[in-house]
Amino acid sequence: MDQVLAYYESHRADFLNRMKDLLRMPSISAQSAHKDDLRKCAGLVRQYLTTAGLQAEIMETGGHPAVLADSGPVEGDRPVVLVYGHYDVQPEGDLNLWHSPPFEPTERDGAVFARGAADDKGQMLTHVFAAECWGKGAGRLPLRLKFLIEGEEEVASAHLEGFTKDHRDQLACDYVLISDTAQFGPGRPALTYGVKGIVYKEILLHGPTQNLHSGSFGGTVANPGNILAHIIASLYQADGRVAIPGFYDDVVELGADEKATLMALPFDEAGYLKELGCPKLFGEPGYSTLERRWVRPTLDVNGLVGGYTGEGASTVIPSDAVGKVSMRLVPAQDPQKISQAFDGAVRAACPDSVQLKILTHGVVAAYLAPLDSAGMKAAARAISRGFGAEPTYIREGGSLPILPLFKEVLGADSIMMGFALPNCNLHGPNEFLHIRDFESGIRTSAYFYGELGTDGR
Amino acid sequence: MDQVLAYYESHRADFLNRMKDLLRMPSISAQSAHKDDLRKCAGLVRQYLTTAGLQAEIMETGGHPAVLADSGPVEGDRPVVLVYGHYDVQPEGDLNLWHSPPFEPTERDGAVFARGAADDKGQMLTHVFAAECWGKGAGRLPLRLKFLIEGEEEVASAHLEGFTKDHRDQLACDYVLISDTAQFGPGRPALTYGVKGIVYKEILLHGPTQNLHSGSFGGTVANPGNILAHIIASLYQADGRVAIPGFYDDVVELGADEKATLMALPFDEAGYLKELGCPKLFGEPGYSTLERRWVRPTLDVNGLVGGYTGEGASTVIPSDAVGKVSMRLVPAQDPQKISQAFDGAVRAACPDSVQLKILTHGVVAAYLAPLDSAGMKAAARAISRGFGAEPTYIREGGSLPILPLFKEVLGADSIMMGFALPNCNLHGPNEFLHIRDFESGIRTSAYFYGELGTDGR
Repeated sequence: MDQVLAYYESHRADFLNRMKDLLRMPSISAQSAHKDDLRKCAGLVRQYLTTAGLQAEIMETGGHPAVLADSGPVEGDRPVVLVYGHYDVQPEGDLNLWHSPPFEPTERDGAVFARGAADDKGQMLTHVFAAECWGKGAGRLPLRLKFLIEGEEEVASAHLEGFTKDHRDQLACDYVLISDTAQFGPGRPALTYGVKGIVYKEILLHGPTQNLHSGSFGGTVANPGNILAHIIASLYQADGRVAIPGFYDDVVELGADEKATLMALPFDEAGYLKELGCPKLFGEPGYSTLERRWVRPTLDVNGLVGGYTGEGASTVIPSDAVGKVSMRLVPAQDPQKISQAFDGAVRAACPDSVQLKILTHGVVAAYLAPLDSAGMKAAARAISRGFGAEPTYIREGGSLPILPLFKEVLGADSIMMGFALPNCNLHGPNEFLHIRDFESGIRTSAYFYGELGTDGR
Repeated sequence: MDQVLAYYESHRADFLNRMKDLLRMPSISAQSAHKDDLRKCAGLVRQYLTTAGLQAEIMETGGHPAVLADSGPVEGDRPVVLVYGHYDVQPEGDLNLWHSPPFEPTERDGAVFARGAADDKGQMLTHVFAAECWGKGAGRLPLRLKFLIEGEEEVASAHLEGFTKDHRDQLACDYVLISDTAQFGPGRPALTYGVKGIVYKEILLHGPTQNLHSGSFGGTVANPGNILAHIIASLYQADGRVAIPGFYDDVVELGADEKATLMALPFDEAGYLKELGCPKLFGEPGYSTLERRWVRPTLDVNGLVGGYTGEGASTVIPSDAVGKVSMRLVPAQDPQKISQAFDGAVRAACPDSVQLKILTHGVVAAYLAPLDSAGMKAAARAISRGFGAEPTYIREGGSLPILPLFKEVLGADSIMMGFALPNCNLHGPNEFLHIRDFESGIRTSAYFYGELGTDGR
């Protein structure tokens, strides 16, 4: 381990620079114009894995490619760890809100600001560089390592299910290791043991062939904008409850122990509100803010558009209106059932005066990991060494489609180490990762490989 | 009148050529690059009015200039008619959709195709040339004529209110004569006696400081997109009725006579539906399509935007959501009162979990002309002589802010003669005016001057 840490120490600047090189690539998976950028980005990930001493390949998936790597077998009966991450990123959004360009990584206040710094390029690379510290520093790996770094996580991992099933032997492992979550707070690195599922829908309404003059034609044709508002309003009550019939049927209330642990967490509600900047917090009646985030299902409008959206006034009846709406699900909710219930509710609320089309962009189950596995215990020890702080056990409102998939196809549970901060602006402007967390992450990952390798299988 | 018609007959080709000369000028008021073209165009209008025998001047307005002309007093106690029109035009739009260049007037199928042929250069000139037929043919005018031809109609007549108030004495008149509307159908010239008012609003909701990850934060903060849907849904019932408290309070039901006239109009509902291309017609229960267009108030979403509006899925809670909503009002509805009722309803529907701002882009009253005035009666006789067809009395769903303005400032009612066709592609590609309608328009205008002049004041 000394050699491993020595290699780490002598390569800190290099690791940081290589992270920045990866962050310069605008690998926005949602936008087809960036197709080539994604492939180039996969190429650089492959290069880093090769440098770490693994056999790495770019694999076709039917969509953006994935990078698959394998160290090959190691001596002794060691567990196999599959590191999962993603090199694709969210769209940059409104450029005017960024203090530095999203794809020109910039250091400020000890952090690197760039789209993907936290989600997930920066966090993912901690495990790649930790492998390099072992491979180059100690000359060997303490366990067999595999990497699967995909390029479609931000578009609901569209091709990953098929890919995983097609490559189940190559991906076979005892644990999946993922850093695509966050610490509980600064200096409180977390082990996330549960994530929500998601069902993401797009409602498309089409009325007249083209935008119409709202004076000449108003009142005689159904307005897709008016109807969209009615449909969305019918799905969600003003008090914060979801109004889709059957939505809560399979939701399990939290057990007394878990609830007590959750309520005991030092959650700074005032700080949270201040950080978000909204007038007040709001959510489902009868639950705390942490419960709403982690263990209660939700429904959110993610996007709305129709008609004239420029400055000032234009008197059109829009020919089309589009609403993107997603639901976050908790364990025991069947995402297929929720998907159908959503479609049924939308169809019931939509009159025949417009044409309705519903697109489904994602149907993913929630996931809950066991807390008492050897992997989870090794992870806890690694974090306490890497960060000098005990891990906080948390759940997460986000979704990781790969988790239920890996459990189902590979039979492996996932270990989610969160190195980023909760306020690191994932999906928003000015995303960042603290350099000290990036570096503690590399050390933690190196400790984890060593701890779990020492345990044996 | 014989001399007038003789002059008309001998100058038909000349009038057509002079209309084409005016149409060659790209007087696009929305585009500052055409500023000089507008001034040149005003100069040619002035020249035509001078040729007709009027004293004409180019007047500064603060924006594009207006042309103001006056024949001076005539013998006897004759009414004064102010012809209002505009020489500015809409942008040409997509040039690929035009079958001949928009500013090279081209004859096809008995019509002149060019931007502004119908809206409003061609129609406006009928009244200029009719004045010339009187002045040059008969050597005198049968009544005092004034012209106000503005250059900003297509940009919401930005300076007209101030100009009208500043020149109320010069503009003083008994009737305003306007041809900027359409026939009811081919061979069915129309007198438009009512237009709707409009109140145009923009609802701005602001929640969190920036877009948030809908997984990490969903369920804990109010979503401006969800709330916008609820607010809009609260303003408008699914059955097509407006739900703003008090909205219908001042709406007057159509009288039996007017309703009978309206119901007797040969309105081609199937053709109308086919033209619009929506699955079916839809509107306020209990009213026909023409009633909904012309005599019932409406509420339409004109634009919606918030969150992620690009391709595919992005899981954000939008920090902002914006809805543009306008209402078309009927006579007796007070636009200020409706404006306040709208704001009140929106505020009542908006929770304190987001910040609300309401912008007002327009507050314009409806206008209804009396059908039994001497001017309206003279207009009907003139149309039946000029076109050889009785006028159809129609209303219009659009709004013309100048009409209530002229009524308020000058105390004059407006007479709207429609010579263009409803499908003459106003604001679209391949705008046209039939030459026979242009010529019938000149004759009709000449008859009108004569009829109203003969009536006396």
